[in-house]
Amino acid sequence: MPGKTVRIAREKRRHHGDRPVLLAIAGDSAAGKTTLTAGLVEALGPERCVSLCTDDYHRYDRRERRELPFTALHPQCNYIEIMEQHLQLLATGQPILKPVYDHTTGELTRPVLVEPNDFVIVEGLFPLYTKLARACFDVTVFVDPPEEIRREWKTSRDTRKRGYTPEQVRAELDLREPESEAYIRPQRAHADIVVRFAPIPGRVDPPGTPLSAELTLRPTVPHPDLSEVLAPGINRAMHLRLGRDTDGRPVDVLHAHGYAARADSTAVEQRIWSSLGESGPGAPDCLGRITSELRSEPLAITQLMLLYHLLCAAR
Amino acid sequence: MPGKTVRIAREKRRHHGDRPVLLAIAGDSAAGKTTLTAGLVEALGPERCVSLCTDDYHRYDRRERRELPFTALHPQCNYIEIMEQHLQLLATGQPILKPVYDHTTGELTRPVLVEPNDFVIVEGLFPLYTKLARACFDVTVFVDPPEEIRREWKTSRDTRKRGYTPEQVRAELDLREPESEAYIRPQRAHADIVVRFAPIPGRVDPPGTPLSAELTLRPTVPHPDLSEVLAPGINRAMHLRLGRDTDGRPVDVLHAHGYAARADSTAVEQRIWSSLGESGPGAPDCLGRITSELRSEPLAITQLMLLYHLLCAAR
Repeated sequence: MPGKTVRIAREKRRHHGDRPVLLAIAGDSAAGKTTLTAGLVEALGPERCVSLCTDDYHRYDRRERRELPFTALHPQCNYIEIMEQHLQLLATGQPILKPVYDHTTGELTRPVLVEPNDFVIVEGLFPLYTKLARACFDVTVFVDPPEEIRREWKTSRDTRKRGYTPEQVRAELDLREPESEAYIRPQRAHADIVVRFAPIPGRVDPPGTPLSAELTLRPTVPHPDLSEVLAPGINRAMHLRLGRDTDGRPVDVLHAHGYAARADSTAVEQRIWSSLGESGPGAPDCLGRITSELRSEPLAITQLMLLYHLLCAAR
Repeated sequence: MPGKTVRIAREKRRHHGDRPVLLAIAGDSAAGKTTLTAGLVEALGPERCVSLCTDDYHRYDRRERRELPFTALHPQCNYIEIMEQHLQLLATGQPILKPVYDHTTGELTRPVLVEPNDFVIVEGLFPLYTKLARACFDVTVFVDPPEEIRREWKTSRDTRKRGYTPEQVRAELDLREPESEAYIRPQRAHADIVVRFAPIPGRVDPPGTPLSAELTLRPTVPHPDLSEVLAPGINRAMHLRLGRDTDGRPVDVLHAHGYAARADSTAVEQRIWSSLGESGPGAPDCLGRITSELRSEPLAITQLMLLYHLLCAAR
């Protein structure tokens, strides 16, 4: 039971106050993991955080992958055992020499030293893939946008930043689909929180309206008490309902509406922020930022929920 | 006491028969570590061995080092903590993703997966530098040729294989001297066996006579009983004497004479080989090989002594 061994080792260190808090953000390529992470790192303070991407554990570079019968989404295409080992080391407060995959060139380059910090955020395709990897985290998230939105995001990003043509991205998405289904999407079942950014079905909002967020809150971690936040008068921005997960398990589902007025959302954000017992001027401005021009209150609320769990775990 | 923890973990695994035997071959640059290692790997069978060099743990590449106030021999120029971590992982039967330093180009490149095998031979500048690193080994060796011989070897190798001019090598050796003294040579004190290839003082042998070997055998590991090997009639090839180490500690000193006739040496080699309880045709031919043309019986005897310790530790 190596997973249990890691948990025990972490609990021992927790008593000594010398282990970092680990957050997993799993999800398919271009599901929004990096955007979610960036705001968290800025809110917590980059000097207290380390964030890393499990894409660095690719076993083959882009040129080598062309000759292989599987894509980067296949566990065989990744050093899963080394990823697990590095997660265990970080989770118990030890440094790692992390491999580096350069998304711009598609090459594997010289590794870098990563020293654990108060918070370690691990995003990527595989952080929740094995039991041992999962044992390393305090909070686990799966980002699960509707496929058509993810395909749009991936096409946009990979053509702008990674030198692919739209046709190449579409072909790659089709090629990856069976492996997404087999290896990536099943990780959803192991997340404490599933995050889904999507338009509200049947609703037509003016262009530029941010996507709404649906957060599935599994009872595997204690979520903040949102009853006050959802008191009458401020629930135009969000609402909470009891639901059943895709597998029938009972869950809370939090809806944060993209169409809500910013003032309504901000009021909710301030309530969550205060419930954290944080003093200071209020929820950090960096939450909800998509680009320097674009922001989304549902994203800010999602990040605040994660911040809540990170800060609670650190206490 | 992390060193003790590693020793305990290794002993537990030893009972389960699932931990590799680790040999350290420490010594300064161009001291003959790789030549010593090559024969051992071939004798044990490459399929049962992994050998690695701690130079791969250089923190800076050659270009970066030019700007630094220390050389590659300074612990700050190396990921010592990561080296220790990787040694612990290998010593307890776990794989590592090992960094790679390319001596030809002076660049740090993509890391490689190293899976532990029956025997792991670790050579380099720093394998005996820390207590935790030392705790990972079954047998430890320090290669300690006279400085003038090492300077010759280094000049010859670095000009032939690493693209330096003789002047550059001499300048580098002078620059490194204070760090050799401070960080490399003190590791000699932690070796079970100190190997010194050198001419015998006062003796003039014909050109082409191999160097003699002086092996300081510390009582930190049980050495083979050599009384029979050194019985009258076969001791023209080698002799054993009681001596005091440089620090006054009692040691056995084994001299293998470079001038001995090959037949005499071979007789000694067969005796050591039989004392190992190994069946088969006799000591492997690969022992003693310096290049495809050159061989040295003192080298063969040295390698046989190490083979003895490796095979005993594996039992």
